[in-house]
Amino acid sequence: MNSFSALMKEFGDRFNTFRFPASPASLYQPNDYFLSLGGKRIRPVLCLLSNQMFGTLSEDAYNTAAAIELFHNFSLIHDDIMDKADLRRGKETVHKKYGANTAILSGDVMLIRAYELLATINPDKLPAILSLFNQTAKEVCEGQQLDMDFESRTTVALDEYLQMIGLKTSVLIAASLEMGAILNNASEEDRQHLYNFGLNLGIAFQIQDDYLDAFGDPAKFGKTVGGDIKQNKKTFLLIYALEHAIGDDKIKLQELLNTDNEDKVASVLAIYKSCKADLWTKELIEKYRTYAMESLAAVKIKEEDKSPLHELAAYLIQREY
Amino acid sequence: MNSFSALMKEFGDRFNTFRFPASPASLYQPNDYFLSLGGKRIRPVLCLLSNQMFGTLSEDAYNTAAAIELFHNFSLIHDDIMDKADLRRGKETVHKKYGANTAILSGDVMLIRAYELLATINPDKLPAILSLFNQTAKEVCEGQQLDMDFESRTTVALDEYLQMIGLKTSVLIAASLEMGAILNNASEEDRQHLYNFGLNLGIAFQIQDDYLDAFGDPAKFGKTVGGDIKQNKKTFLLIYALEHAIGDDKIKLQELLNTDNEDKVASVLAIYKSCKADLWTKELIEKYRTYAMESLAAVKIKEEDKSPLHELAAYLIQREY
Repeated sequence: MNSFSALMKEFGDRFNTFRFPASPASLYQPNDYFLSLGGKRIRPVLCLLSNQMFGTLSEDAYNTAAAIELFHNFSLIHDDIMDKADLRRGKETVHKKYGANTAILSGDVMLIRAYELLATINPDKLPAILSLFNQTAKEVCEGQQLDMDFESRTTVALDEYLQMIGLKTSVLIAASLEMGAILNNASEEDRQHLYNFGLNLGIAFQIQDDYLDAFGDPAKFGKTVGGDIKQNKKTFLLIYALEHAIGDDKIKLQELLNTDNEDKVASVLAIYKSCKADLWTKELIEKYRTYAMESLAAVKIKEEDKSPLHELAAYLIQREY
Repeated sequence: MNSFSALMKEFGDRFNTFRFPASPASLYQPNDYFLSLGGKRIRPVLCLLSNQMFGTLSEDAYNTAAAIELFHNFSLIHDDIMDKADLRRGKETVHKKYGANTAILSGDVMLIRAYELLATINPDKLPAILSLFNQTAKEVCEGQQLDMDFESRTTVALDEYLQMIGLKTSVLIAASLEMGAILNNASEEDRQHLYNFGLNLGIAFQIQDDYLDAFGDPAKFGKTVGGDIKQNKKTFLLIYALEHAIGDDKIKLQELLNTDNEDKVASVLAIYKSCKADLWTKELIEKYRTYAMESLAAVKIKEEDKSPLHELAAYLIQREY
C-alpha cells in the first residue's frame, strides 16, 4: 500500500515525461507548455489510491489517471478563455500567450488525447470507465456554464451554489476515485461509497477555499486574502451574508457590493463576522467533511488500507485556520 | 441493400429527433439550435453505407454514425469561432448568436456527447472504433490548425495544401467508411480500401469545391462565385497560378492580391485561364476521383453491392461544370 505522498511523487514523475506530438508545433506546443506549469495532480492520484485499495496498482490505472489529469487541464485551458484569466499558477494562460483560437483548438486536442489514453485500457473495463468519464465530463461543463450564468444574476440560492460547485469541481474528484475502484473490480456499493467520499470531500474543500480567501492566514494560504470580496464573487460567505445580515448591515453590504473603496474588504469581513457567516461556513466545512468520512468508513476493506485516503483528506481539509 | 438516398432519409429522420438535455438550457439549447440548421449528413450515411456492405445494418452503426455527425458539428461550432464566421447554412453561427464562451463550452459538450454514443457500442468493437475515432479527431484538429497557420503565410506549397485538406476534411470521410466496416467485421484489407476510397474522394471533392467557387455555374453551385478570390484564399487554383503564371500575369496576380477592385475576380479568373489552372484543377479532381474508384474496386465484395457508394461518388463529384 503506497502512501498518498509516495503516489503523488510516482505519478508526477511519470506524467512529467508525457509529451504531445512535435508537429504541428502551433497546435501541440501550447499543451506541453500548459502541462509544464505543473499542478498538484490530486485527481489522478485519487484514481491510483482507490485502485490499490482493491488490488495491484495496474497500468490501466496509470493511463486512466493520466486521462483524468489531461481532462482537468483541458477544462482549465478552456475555462481560462471564458474567465478572461491571464495567469494560471503564476504563468501566462494559453489564450494569453498564444491567442484564443489556439487555446480553443489545443484544448480540444488535449481532450481527445485523454480519450486516446482511455482507449488503451482493458476492453472488459472500457465501457464502464468511458461511461463514467463521459458523464463526469458533461457535468463539469454544466458546472462551468452555471458558474458563468450565476455571474450575471443578482441572487443565487445556497442550494444552487452547492449544485454548481458539486458539478464544477467535486464530480471529477468523486469519479477519479470510482474509476480506480472499477479497474480493480470493487463492488457496486464500495464504488458508490468512494464516489460519495470524493463528492463530499470536494464540496468541503471548495467551501474551505471560499473561507480561506476571506479569513485565511495569508502566510499559510499562499494568496492575497479578500480577492473574492473585491470581485463581488458569489461565495458561500456572501450568499449566506446576503440572506442573514440584518438591519444596517444588510443595507451596508448591498452598498459595499457597488463600491470599490480601500476599506471594502475590511467592511465586508466585519459584516460576515457580525452575521456569523464565518462560523456557519466552518460548520458547513465540517459537515461535508463528516459526510465524506462516513462514506469512507462504509467502504468494506480493512481500515488500515484506508490510511492513504485519510492522509489525503487531512491534506485537503486543514481543520486549522 | 439500401440506396444512398434511402439511408440519407433514414438517418436524417432518426437524427432529427436527437435532443440535448433540457437543463442547463444556456449550455444545451445552442447545440439543439445548431443541429436544427441541418446539413447533408454525408459522413454518418457513409458509415451506414459501408456497414450494410458487410452484413446487417446494426444499431451500433447508427450510434457510431450519430457520434460522427456530432463530432463534425462540434468541429464546425469551434471552427466558426476561430474563423469569425457569422453565418452557417444561412443562419447565425453559435458564437454569433450566443457568444464565444457559450460556443466553446457547448461545442465541448457536443464532443463529449459523441463519446457517450460510442460508449454504447458492442465492447468487442469499442477499442477499434474508439482508436480510429480519436486518431481522426486529432487529425481534424491538426488540419484546422494548419489551415489557420497557412492564412498568415505568404506561400503554401501544393503538397502542404493537400496535406491540410486531407486532415481537415478527408480523414473524417475516410474514417466514417472504415468504422461502418469495422462494425461488421470487414477484413483489414477491405477496411483500408474503403478508407482510401473516402480519403481520395474527399480530396477530389475539396478540389472541386475550390474549382466551383471560381468557375462554377452560380445557379447550380448555390453560392456566389469568386468568394475565395475576393478573400485571397489559398485554393488549389491560386497555389497553382502563383507557381505557374508567367511574365506580366505573374506580376499582375501579385498586385491583384493587394487590391480589392471591382474587377478583381474577373482579372484573377483571366490569369487562372491563361496559365491553365482551370484545366489542371479539373485533371486533379479526376485524378483523385480515379484513385478513389480504384480503391472501391479493390474491396472484395460483389460489385452490385457497391452501387450505393457509386451513387454517393456521383453525388459528390459532379463531373459537369
